[in-house]
Amino acid sequence: MAATQTIALDVMGGDHGPQVVIPGAALSLVRHPDTRYILFGDEGVIREELANHKSLQDKSEIVHTDVSISMDAKPSQALRKGRWKSSMWKSIEAVRDGDAEAVVSAGNTGALMAMSRFCLKTLPEIERPAIAAIWPTVDAECIVLDVGANVGADARQLIDFSMMGAAMARALFSHARPTVGLLNIGVEEIKGLEEVRKAAAALRESNPPFDYRGFVEGNDVGQGVVDVVVTEGFSGNIALKTAEGTAKQISAYLRAAMSRSLMARMGAILAQGAFRALKEKMDPRQSNGGVFLGLNGIVIKSHGGTDATGFASAIDLGYDMARSGLVERLTSDIEKFHASLNMENIA
Amino acid sequence: MAATQTIALDVMGGDHGPQVVIPGAALSLVRHPDTRYILFGDEGVIREELANHKSLQDKSEIVHTDVSISMDAKPSQALRKGRWKSSMWKSIEAVRDGDAEAVVSAGNTGALMAMSRFCLKTLPEIERPAIAAIWPTVDAECIVLDVGANVGADARQLIDFSMMGAAMARALFSHARPTVGLLNIGVEEIKGLEEVRKAAAALRESNPPFDYRGFVEGNDVGQGVVDVVVTEGFSGNIALKTAEGTAKQISAYLRAAMSRSLMARMGAILAQGAFRALKEKMDPRQSNGGVFLGLNGIVIKSHGGTDATGFASAIDLGYDMARSGLVERLTSDIEKFHASLNMENIA
Repeated sequence: MAATQTIALDVMGGDHGPQVVIPGAALSLVRHPDTRYILFGDEGVIREELANHKSLQDKSEIVHTDVSISMDAKPSQALRKGRWKSSMWKSIEAVRDGDAEAVVSAGNTGALMAMSRFCLKTLPEIERPAIAAIWPTVDAECIVLDVGANVGADARQLIDFSMMGAAMARALFSHARPTVGLLNIGVEEIKGLEEVRKAAAALRESNPPFDYRGFVEGNDVGQGVVDVVVTEGFSGNIALKTAEGTAKQISAYLRAAMSRSLMARMGAILAQGAFRALKEKMDPRQSNGGVFLGLNGIVIKSHGGTDATGFASAIDLGYDMARSGLVERLTSDIEKFHASLNMENIA
Repeated sequence: MAATQTIALDVMGGDHGPQVVIPGAALSLVRHPDTRYILFGDEGVIREELANHKSLQDKSEIVHTDVSISMDAKPSQALRKGRWKSSMWKSIEAVRDGDAEAVVSAGNTGALMAMSRFCLKTLPEIERPAIAAIWPTVDAECIVLDVGANVGADARQLIDFSMMGAAMARALFSHARPTVGLLNIGVEEIKGLEEVRKAAAALRESNPPFDYRGFVEGNDVGQGVVDVVVTEGFSGNIALKTAEGTAKQISAYLRAAMSRSLMARMGAILAQGAFRALKEKMDPRQSNGGVFLGLNGIVIKSHGGTDATGFASAIDLGYDMARSGLVERLTSDIEKFHASLNMENIA
């Protein structure tokens, strides 16, 4: 396998900055002792936090930055204020310059995407990056994209998303030929969006580097019907947040149900091991981390409000992606497949 | 309150036809003894099934039809084959002719929508009907529309959906001034779709007959943040099915967790009353029934594969909607509000 992975961390990003990023990195280091870190942010604050994590200290290099991007900065403001010098920018730049294999930031999504596009540029022939999420399924996990980088996508972009998602599935799930479905709705007359239909026709008639399985519906995602679910960013974001909301809602029902009678409370005590396992399975921190796909480099977006456990998951994801040689493989897939596509179908 | 409600039933609709529709009607009749039914379908089969439900028999009139619409018929085929004579058509016609206050069918959605539009026509100034779903929330229920009648919606249509959803909320939840939100995504730069933004601007600057609360996201729906969530049909359908899929997925996790050890199994036995309550709360049959809004009449679509309990819920919904005088009220709301709208905002 590959040698040491170096990961750039935007230490100032997120609601809690260094208080979450540093302990998160220490946690991930236990699981992947061959990681090295470059920590971008306020050196004084970082040193203070690092003092509690000796083993991390030995594996880290600190690059001091004065500027950090606020969580509510607009992307254009963030670029104006933070380009060349913020912790967010510098950590992305480390990937561009080959000093790190991936960057992880809990900073604001819009700013991170704008800076990543500006600094790393998109892969050849890719018009737009997408954000991919890892979605827990009944038996395992699947990948859903785009979950909000763009609103709307034409057929060509949906096909590109399919390819990016498949490359990520190969990297993370080690499936040589991941299954891919296009998210659609089952209403009879108007079977979904024009662009979704066009993308489907082009995929059926071509020979993509994955196993195209046709349309899937919202209820198929969590059942793990395919490895990769492709949709445009508006519906993808709504689907992701709806699933999160539903899980939260059911947890509330369950808590209420288990405390409504003495018998139920006794049962809950006996079953507490089982409930702990369920809670872990449903814990959104376990699958924290959106991946920006389609860029010349690996950028992982952690949830802004996460804790050290969640941030560690995002680092783990960056580590796995970096080890897999995703960007090189994807670049070669895209070249080959675009050459084979019948462009008339998606004009 | 109103006198007897008469409900037209498409007895041949759904995966199980009379075997579900007739027992479902009998169940709903227990809850609403002032209902009368007109049963459209094969008279022989209906009489046979009715023999097991004496009290329903006394409240029902049978109208024999020879034709029924198959579950996989395309809307255009269904119209060609079933107009004027199918059980589906005749049951809708009963509403048009004032013989029934609502129609309930478990037949195929596309055919039911096409026939309903053709037979009942849309309300004045309404371009497109929508399908509204009742969505369980942490504390109660909310209404989400459109969940799949149309793909895409412009600002004017989104505003119409708001009005229709608010009228339904008034009818079902007895809130004089329901709260309404537009479903959107939280990505910074491109705050959602152009049309959603335009609808939001028009609603903010006008005086709608409901309490407009701005944008909501996917995770807000199940938290009950607003009474009515408005979106176009593609994302609405995906959100609805994603929530259903997530609930199913978590049930599977819970079952697996509760059977993994002897302690957990014992706990589950003690807590079985609590689990039963939870199961009921999560039972999709409890909120079975999509409402077609924006037509000159009340049309309820039951899930095609539901059982008698689920079909009874759909009838209950038709009963509540019919009692509320929804169509008249909505017609008057639309007239007044359209007159007050600044059309420049949504041009």
